[in-house]
Amino acid sequence: MNARTRLLVVGGDAAGMSAASQARRRIGPDGLEIVAFERGAHTSYSACGIPYLVGKTVAGPEDLVARDPATFRRDHAVDVRTGTEVRAIDLDRRTVEAVGPDGRVLTEPFDHLMVATGAVPRRPGLPGDRAEGVFGVQTLDDGIAVTAYLEERRPKRAVVVGGGYIGLEMAEAFALRGMEVTVITSGDEPMATLDPDMGALVRGAMAEMGIDVRTRERVSAIEAEGGRVAAVVTPEGTYPADVVALGLGVRPASDLARDAGLEIGPSGGIAVDARMRTSHEGVWAAGDCVENFHRISRAPVAIALGTHANKQGRVAGINIGGGYARFEGVVGTAITKVCDLEVARTGLNEAEAEAAGFAYETATMRSTTRAGYYPGATWMTVKLLAERRSGRLLGGQIVGRENSGKRIDVLATALWNDMDVEDVSGMDLSYAPPFSPVWDPVLIAARKLSEKLGN
Amino acid sequence: MNARTRLLVVGGDAAGMSAASQARRRIGPDGLEIVAFERGAHTSYSACGIPYLVGKTVAGPEDLVARDPATFRRDHAVDVRTGTEVRAIDLDRRTVEAVGPDGRVLTEPFDHLMVATGAVPRRPGLPGDRAEGVFGVQTLDDGIAVTAYLEERRPKRAVVVGGGYIGLEMAEAFALRGMEVTVITSGDEPMATLDPDMGALVRGAMAEMGIDVRTRERVSAIEAEGGRVAAVVTPEGTYPADVVALGLGVRPASDLARDAGLEIGPSGGIAVDARMRTSHEGVWAAGDCVENFHRISRAPVAIALGTHANKQGRVAGINIGGGYARFEGVVGTAITKVCDLEVARTGLNEAEAEAAGFAYETATMRSTTRAGYYPGATWMTVKLLAERRSGRLLGGQIVGRENSGKRIDVLATALWNDMDVEDVSGMDLSYAPPFSPVWDPVLIAARKLSEKLGN
Repeated sequence: MNARTRLLVVGGDAAGMSAASQARRRIGPDGLEIVAFERGAHTSYSACGIPYLVGKTVAGPEDLVARDPATFRRDHAVDVRTGTEVRAIDLDRRTVEAVGPDGRVLTEPFDHLMVATGAVPRRPGLPGDRAEGVFGVQTLDDGIAVTAYLEERRPKRAVVVGGGYIGLEMAEAFALRGMEVTVITSGDEPMATLDPDMGALVRGAMAEMGIDVRTRERVSAIEAEGGRVAAVVTPEGTYPADVVALGLGVRPASDLARDAGLEIGPSGGIAVDARMRTSHEGVWAAGDCVENFHRISRAPVAIALGTHANKQGRVAGINIGGGYARFEGVVGTAITKVCDLEVARTGLNEAEAEAAGFAYETATMRSTTRAGYYPGATWMTVKLLAERRSGRLLGGQIVGRENSGKRIDVLATALWNDMDVEDVSGMDLSYAPPFSPVWDPVLIAARKLSEKLGN
Repeated sequence: MNARTRLLVVGGDAAGMSAASQARRRIGPDGLEIVAFERGAHTSYSACGIPYLVGKTVAGPEDLVARDPATFRRDHAVDVRTGTEVRAIDLDRRTVEAVGPDGRVLTEPFDHLMVATGAVPRRPGLPGDRAEGVFGVQTLDDGIAVTAYLEERRPKRAVVVGGGYIGLEMAEAFALRGMEVTVITSGDEPMATLDPDMGALVRGAMAEMGIDVRTRERVSAIEAEGGRVAAVVTPEGTYPADVVALGLGVRPASDLARDAGLEIGPSGGIAVDARMRTSHEGVWAAGDCVENFHRISRAPVAIALGTHANKQGRVAGINIGGGYARFEGVVGTAITKVCDLEVARTGLNEAEAEAAGFAYETATMRSTTRAGYYPGATWMTVKLLAERRSGRLLGGQIVGRENSGKRIDVLATALWNDMDVEDVSGMDLSYAPPFSPVWDPVLIAARKLSEKLGN
């Protein structure tokens, strides 16, 4: 081993490279060697941007790359090795086994190990799901592949399997290219992280855009002709398809860590503490592969989201570099834009509140985004959940048009601080006619829920 | 006195009529008589909307009226008497003296009195400030008058005296009508509720729109010709003017209450507790005429804002009706839109933090409103103040383009909960490329300030 400390990073996306950068900020190349292994060809890209690449909202894949390997080598003295897959971790010997682009197996020692292996898409495991024209949408390479396929084949009919964020974003991307689009989801409504009454609003907007949403259907097979996808089959029907996107969500890519003997939590993510330490000294993990502490349910959850990956990677890197930083958990905030609708949620939805054992009450309010008389005022619906006895806010959901979604952050901040809805309803939020009615929609919903609870 | 309780309301705008409606919700006409006196012709209108009326962003004054007197009479059994000015309150006898539209003086008894007299515009008290063509911008009647003047006279040159919210909004309104506009302010930069470094960004946007902003100039006279305004004079120059708007802010209209013997606070507003009770039993006050508790400075402040008036009126009405409600104070949140810039602030600015005795540190970050690669991404600047020792957030300011201003509500919520900037920087705010870079601009600013404080 070198005289200087050696940090190996497994995974060159947001979490891994944030950790590398932060560690480097604290310790220069003379004190710390950093080697990062990335299976694919790209580092630090926005996976969340893939649907916008597919829908031609952004011009090319290079737009989604925040910093490429050459930048990390030059500006951060990080030895980035793309096309290199780590196959095993030996915690006792403190080495990893990696296979390089030429197929050679390397054994590399570490003092610190940063595990940032991300997530893997769930695949239905059905006959035909490996046919040509069936795509996952997880890595930038996936995004490049599906875009190339669309450019070359000019398919007319797209089927999206799965009605979550990525599924609906892909459905819109296909629709923006002028394709006929069908979304198949097993849920009562699309966007299962919302309650069905709010998800129904999303389905309405998709229908307006001509997207056919099939709810309560489970895909039983994907049919191929000549090796290429031809249709998606459910017990209720057969949907012809020239291209299929699998948007069934992801699970933490924690197999490597599990095989090495690191503790894995009940969510399937690598167990870490607030400093992003795993169960083994000097081994750190961050990003989609880890388990998060949910501040409201107090339960461990796996949430794949770039913003968490960035924050956690930064925390790990500061700690690796000898500093002190903590990741204080999540409240389950998420947002997306689907067919001109803004969709956002935070905290617990009804099913989650039930599962967490809360007795809760809800209130839903439709309001306007601006003063009613101000041009551009449009609708938004806010739904809130609160604990019945205490009035404590448990969660919020927003579906609306322009300028509605980001208001979820007020609720996320309120949840972060364990506020009750009566207190929320009195908050000093900004008001001016171009931005809000005189009672902000979030405040109206909180007031209504507080009144329902007897205040 | 009647067998039923009698509530008199002085002032028919947001605070007074909210109180009337809430009291009515709790006690029907058989138990409670409600009489509301309004000096002008209108009830419950949006004074904040006046610049949009002047700038023709909204079509007519009726758009700004939430509920007219007839509606209150019909739906809420409130005896609204417009054109009726209350001249005196006799607390011992529990009567008010009012002058009706016909000039007759009435003496009306009350059990409960709701004082909602609003604010009065500050006038420079200069020769010429009563000339034709010089307008305050406080009441809907003011808005109607200035609009009529513009339509009839088609003036070419407007001068706005004062660089606060209403002044800048009026400047934009005149510019939208194609007029040459000069703004004269005594401050270092326009928008004195922001620190000068942030106010400079506002000045830049106004200059781009062709509005001439003269800073550090004090108006010494308004010149008239034939009784009509001709120019505005400062020691630095004479600015020809066909119309002048006075946007020098407002002060609480608390003279009536003061003369009656009600306690007035150091801010000049009527002193009230959190239930909106004045110093005299059964006498309530709410809206622009009262003093607010500032949760950060812990000092009394007078803030004229429709959203506070609505909330406070509601609180007073619930309490008058026998319920229980509290107004838990303000954190000084405000927002406006000036020349395509969104401008927002909350908490304390540097001068206010200084005055409140805080040792503080600041951080300012320019960031993008969306992921950099997402179409429509534009800039926003966030400035934060935190207490030096504790890291406690003291205030925030945002100046930016589309979709930046409303993010101030995250900071307002954080202030409401006494958060420190390190905790703010880790919050689970929503992220998706159309809404935010992967690090939300508010979080970046908090992180930078926390780092400055040694975290």
